[in-house]
Amino acid sequence: MEIAELGEFGLIKHLTKDITPCNTSTHKGVGDDCAVISTGTEDRMLVTTDLLMEGVHFDLTYMPLRHLGYKAVMVNLSDIYAMNGTPSQITVSLAISKRFKVEDIEELYSGMRMACEHHKVDIVGGDTTSSMTGLAISITAIGYAKEEDIAYRSGAKETDLICVSGNLGAAYMGLQILEREKSVYNQQVKEATQQAQRNGSNVEEAIAQIPQPDFAGKEYLLERQMKPEARKDIVEKLHLANVKITSMIDISDGLSSELMHICEQSQCGCRIYEERIPLDYQTAVTAEEFNLNVSTCALNGGEDYELLFTVPLTANEIVSAIEDVKVIGYITKPELGKALICRDGSEFELKAQGWNHMTTE
Amino acid sequence: MEIAELGEFGLIKHLTKDITPCNTSTHKGVGDDCAVISTGTEDRMLVTTDLLMEGVHFDLTYMPLRHLGYKAVMVNLSDIYAMNGTPSQITVSLAISKRFKVEDIEELYSGMRMACEHHKVDIVGGDTTSSMTGLAISITAIGYAKEEDIAYRSGAKETDLICVSGNLGAAYMGLQILEREKSVYNQQVKEATQQAQRNGSNVEEAIAQIPQPDFAGKEYLLERQMKPEARKDIVEKLHLANVKITSMIDISDGLSSELMHICEQSQCGCRIYEERIPLDYQTAVTAEEFNLNVSTCALNGGEDYELLFTVPLTANEIVSAIEDVKVIGYITKPELGKALICRDGSEFELKAQGWNHMTTE
Repeated sequence: MEIAELGEFGLIKHLTKDITPCNTSTHKGVGDDCAVISTGTEDRMLVTTDLLMEGVHFDLTYMPLRHLGYKAVMVNLSDIYAMNGTPSQITVSLAISKRFKVEDIEELYSGMRMACEHHKVDIVGGDTTSSMTGLAISITAIGYAKEEDIAYRSGAKETDLICVSGNLGAAYMGLQILEREKSVYNQQVKEATQQAQRNGSNVEEAIAQIPQPDFAGKEYLLERQMKPEARKDIVEKLHLANVKITSMIDISDGLSSELMHICEQSQCGCRIYEERIPLDYQTAVTAEEFNLNVSTCALNGGEDYELLFTVPLTANEIVSAIEDVKVIGYITKPELGKALICRDGSEFELKAQGWNHMTTE
Repeated sequence: MEIAELGEFGLIKHLTKDITPCNTSTHKGVGDDCAVISTGTEDRMLVTTDLLMEGVHFDLTYMPLRHLGYKAVMVNLSDIYAMNGTPSQITVSLAISKRFKVEDIEELYSGMRMACEHHKVDIVGGDTTSSMTGLAISITAIGYAKEEDIAYRSGAKETDLICVSGNLGAAYMGLQILEREKSVYNQQVKEATQQAQRNGSNVEEAIAQIPQPDFAGKEYLLERQMKPEARKDIVEKLHLANVKITSMIDISDGLSSELMHICEQSQCGCRIYEERIPLDYQTAVTAEEFNLNVSTCALNGGEDYELLFTVPLTANEIVSAIEDVKVIGYITKPELGKALICRDGSEFELKAQGWNHMTTE
């Protein structure tokens, strides 16, 4: 059977479906942003891991190594925050192909260390090896949370409010811009090379004369794609406001896909409103430029690393007053399905088109 | 600067040299088989991680996926045992290229699950993604140990006895056999193809007629290479015998290299005796067949996953009575250096030629 038939989530479900933990310390295994391990105190340990592969998750033609290092750490810390936890340690494994110099790995590492400093996280170990092909980065993050504070995907209840931090779709639009400029540049290199060969002039010089792309007005989108920030601040604000988070997940694969995870694991339905999905001005303008529906970008674009969470209806006033948090809908009975209410009042069933590297799409 | 100039250990040292932990829970960071994290109880948590890359760490032309899965877990559990700990959980990240089917990943996973069952370890999470090239496997293992029991690399003291479990060099000899048979097979395929083309007969049929290699008498060596077993039993026996382990490391890169880590971190020297290095009969016979010095294979061959440890001199009788443990020498003052005493009485300074993927060797 082709893996694409199952997709990433289907494959994981298939492989892990009959795993029964044999250690009493295994409090929660596969199926949430983090595993949860008992420690013998009121604190639980949270563990999450991500494997980033060159050519699949990043493109070094436009991704500076320092940014890549920063982002590789952030995507893991985001999973710890998504459990309402505090990250404390990471391990970093790298597989490095021959084309990298020590200075390159220093750059990558400096981005990782900057991310760790911002979030007060220690690099405590890892593995460094060679790769026959591209760069591979595997990071495992460890954090902690009190059991009563942990926000699982499975805790959403009927009438709970569905909230989102920040805004969505910006990282996806940033990626579109980078991909467009890459293909423009490749075309320019081809033309400059042909012209130089025809004229008998120096090819390298001709390439060096190609102007740098102009990203004016798109800085925010590029930053969202290249240097995402895990939302520690939101978790802290919710804690200070004494809000009980009933379920939470970070938005790495797109709002639709994540909301479906919450609904599936909480055995509930949902209603969200298109007009309430938070969007940045640059995201909207750029989507128009690319002839894309901005709501589709927000629903299905990946890598936002914002938080999607539910709170009891009674917390409405409190969460609505928190800067950078928006209520976008509410949780319903499962039989009501997962509905998106559009600006014109029409209803659609939510689908996870998501950011799934393994489907054939 | 080329990474090969520094090598794996040099690169890690270079990148992590000025890292100062900022979390009080970080008890021990980079530099041992595992990181050690405080939990608030007398138990410490141990964390270790390994990244295995196709073409570097394994060759799927002769490594069955089930064995690969088993081995990938074992190399991580071995690091937990090397701290005198008990493994409890692992996370598994896979990057999978298009040529793999669901059935292949099931095979890989079944080997992982078998390893976990043998060692009572839970798979609690991971990441599954696609790869543009080969297979990548990243496993993080978590375990625990009481602080007073943890065996660091840094605890060896003058006059301590140096002990080794099992026997050494067998996995390396297993690899030599597999590599030889692979090149014989490739040559046979080439010849069969040419012959069939000359005769106008079916190439595939001709290839199918090539006899399977005969591994009679080499089974033990192949098993040591393809299905290594982390030495849980040794750790348990030492515990039952109430032996205080002063330092420990697992032998993944060769005895020389590991002993040098212990000497460096314990700031001591050592004297080991060639005639006391434990060897299996098949290892010795096969080394002769390959015209290799068997002691060199034992000192520098990788992937044995045996334990190298030191105990106080007073434990001599006890450890000598433990099956599958051999005393091979003792710890000295640092100024006496790291000496290997050969069978003829001559002395050599130990060198780590090891199993270092990143040097130019």
